[in-house]
Amino acid sequence: MFKTIEWLDRGVRMIDQRVLPTREVYKTFRGYKEVAGAIQDMVIRGAPAIGVAGAMGIALGASKINTEEIKAFTKDFKKIVRHVAGARPTAVNLGWAARRMEALFEANKDKPTAEIKKILIAEARKMHDEDVLINKKIGANGARLLKKNSTVLTHCNAGALATAGYGTALGVIRGAIEKGKNIKVFADETRPFLQGARLTAWELKKDGIDVTLIADNMAGHMMQQGLIDAVVVGADRIASNGDACNKIGTYTVAVLAKAHKIPFYVAAPLSTIDMDIKTGAEIPIEERSIKEITHMAGKRLAPTGINVRNPVFDVTPAKLITAIITEKGVVKKPFKAGIKALFEKKKKKKTGNKK
Amino acid sequence: MFKTIEWLDRGVRMIDQRVLPTREVYKTFRGYKEVAGAIQDMVIRGAPAIGVAGAMGIALGASKINTEEIKAFTKDFKKIVRHVAGARPTAVNLGWAARRMEALFEANKDKPTAEIKKILIAEARKMHDEDVLINKKIGANGARLLKKNSTVLTHCNAGALATAGYGTALGVIRGAIEKGKNIKVFADETRPFLQGARLTAWELKKDGIDVTLIADNMAGHMMQQGLIDAVVVGADRIASNGDACNKIGTYTVAVLAKAHKIPFYVAAPLSTIDMDIKTGAEIPIEERSIKEITHMAGKRLAPTGINVRNPVFDVTPAKLITAIITEKGVVKKPFKAGIKALFEKKKKKKTGNKK
Repeated sequence: MFKTIEWLDRGVRMIDQRVLPTREVYKTFRGYKEVAGAIQDMVIRGAPAIGVAGAMGIALGASKINTEEIKAFTKDFKKIVRHVAGARPTAVNLGWAARRMEALFEANKDKPTAEIKKILIAEARKMHDEDVLINKKIGANGARLLKKNSTVLTHCNAGALATAGYGTALGVIRGAIEKGKNIKVFADETRPFLQGARLTAWELKKDGIDVTLIADNMAGHMMQQGLIDAVVVGADRIASNGDACNKIGTYTVAVLAKAHKIPFYVAAPLSTIDMDIKTGAEIPIEERSIKEITHMAGKRLAPTGINVRNPVFDVTPAKLITAIITEKGVVKKPFKAGIKALFEKKKKKKTGNKK
Repeated sequence: MFKTIEWLDRGVRMIDQRVLPTREVYKTFRGYKEVAGAIQDMVIRGAPAIGVAGAMGIALGASKINTEEIKAFTKDFKKIVRHVAGARPTAVNLGWAARRMEALFEANKDKPTAEIKKILIAEARKMHDEDVLINKKIGANGARLLKKNSTVLTHCNAGALATAGYGTALGVIRGAIEKGKNIKVFADETRPFLQGARLTAWELKKDGIDVTLIADNMAGHMMQQGLIDAVVVGADRIASNGDACNKIGTYTVAVLAKAHKIPFYVAAPLSTIDMDIKTGAEIPIEERSIKEITHMAGKRLAPTGINVRNPVFDVTPAKLITAIITEKGVVKKPFKAGIKALFEKKKKKKTGNKK
């Protein structure tokens, strides 16, 4: 199996998701600016994966700070954190990872800088391993929701490639298959970046999971034909009321699922839930270059001189979501109370990590 | 302005829609097999346009039959009709055009073959000019339905390029603008063939109409943001109950429009209505090469060894349609009675052309 992201002593190694599925290329980034650039340029994407990448980028940057004097070290460290955290605006995990690294730094400021560096590196590596474990729990929790023989539609890539490994939405599918269920997958190609065609289809095929690729605009037709039993998607940020921000097109799939009475599940770790925001309306929606729409493989597809929109995410209101699948359990309506309870459960168990 | 299709004495000239919008290339097809090939290969597409192309292809074929003996001529003529009519399966207009040419032939069989050839050519040219007039009537009828300042979402290309000129769905937009209304357009790019990005955006820009290109999966988000006031699409075949078969993705847009209480209009000539079928369930849905999904501009986008679906059309049930806009008037629910009345009106007026 491939590794989405890995800590090496010489840097942070990632599979370059921009050249998949035709080439499996690994790149090692040797400085925090390079890691932030990789996040920005979408060498790595997916909310949990960029959280881990962010933490590793910060640890990498810290490990190369060239002073043992704590005041100067702090100044450099904060600069690194700010730079990495600003690489992409929508996913909450990047900010979450940055805050976690910063809190750890604050708690260990009295130690020698060599020690602090080791602690930060260990933490970033721990976040990687934790993420895989979290995904496996999400998978086990979500597996129960899928029927024995069923076909699941997914949008974008919330898979091993979007996380440290295993995946959230695809983790639910892997979890169900591990429980002996016969799950087939329909993957929306997910324009414009084609995460579905390039990444989801690739990683499911690598795992021997039956996958059928469709264009985004075919999802309604497939539901109308009775071919889809459930929808499972990931999330880039979930508001405290359950509104879920995810890849552009997710909202359309949710409306379609509702119209066809098909359950619509969001699979995401607690780190994706932003308790500081009341609803999805507070989530900034990143717009990326219009070239992603007007060009493909370097070839112009659309005429010049027209308007183009390229919002990268949309918000699915909680009312269209059947359940949110987390590592701490499955939350159903009313989401606000259910989500709050998840965090309280977490506190009680003292499993940490709450921002 | 460009010409989608044109009769020349040396053959049938078409703008090559496969190379738009980057190149404006015209090709002249000198035999009926070449015209059928152009329909098959999507040099020309759009139900009304391929109806006209079919008629011209048949006239062209007939004009080159090398016998004056009517029995042999008939045999060759029927072969030509069968070949051209079989070029694409879903659009009703191709069959409609073929039957019209065949009926005309039957009615004139007693004439010398040189005379028959002239009659067939004149008919094909008449069908071209009729189509433009029909579209202008559709435009005028539909213009009334759009509010003075409004933004219309359209899917695929039901424009001048999909017809002999002016367009059906885009005809409605042109008609409204001619009436002094301020209409802006959102165009779905329409995967996989990108008729929206390549053709709709191109022809609207040529006309100076404000157009914003989006990926198909953004339509829901734009509606959610309150940016869309109405949807107008074309149709490839409409059943006698109002179910409308159109480019894949149209059904998804219709479901979205319903969920957002946005009117959803289908603009099409009577020749698109198939009174022989009761519902859309009887319409065969063409599937085209999966390469349209897995490749773009010669570059592979998806991994090998996966399943791919590529249905070209879907069926929007009549219940999701606010009104069908035809050259004979606007039909609302109940569609069955309204559509029947349209054809009776047509018969009474003796304007001909009913198959």
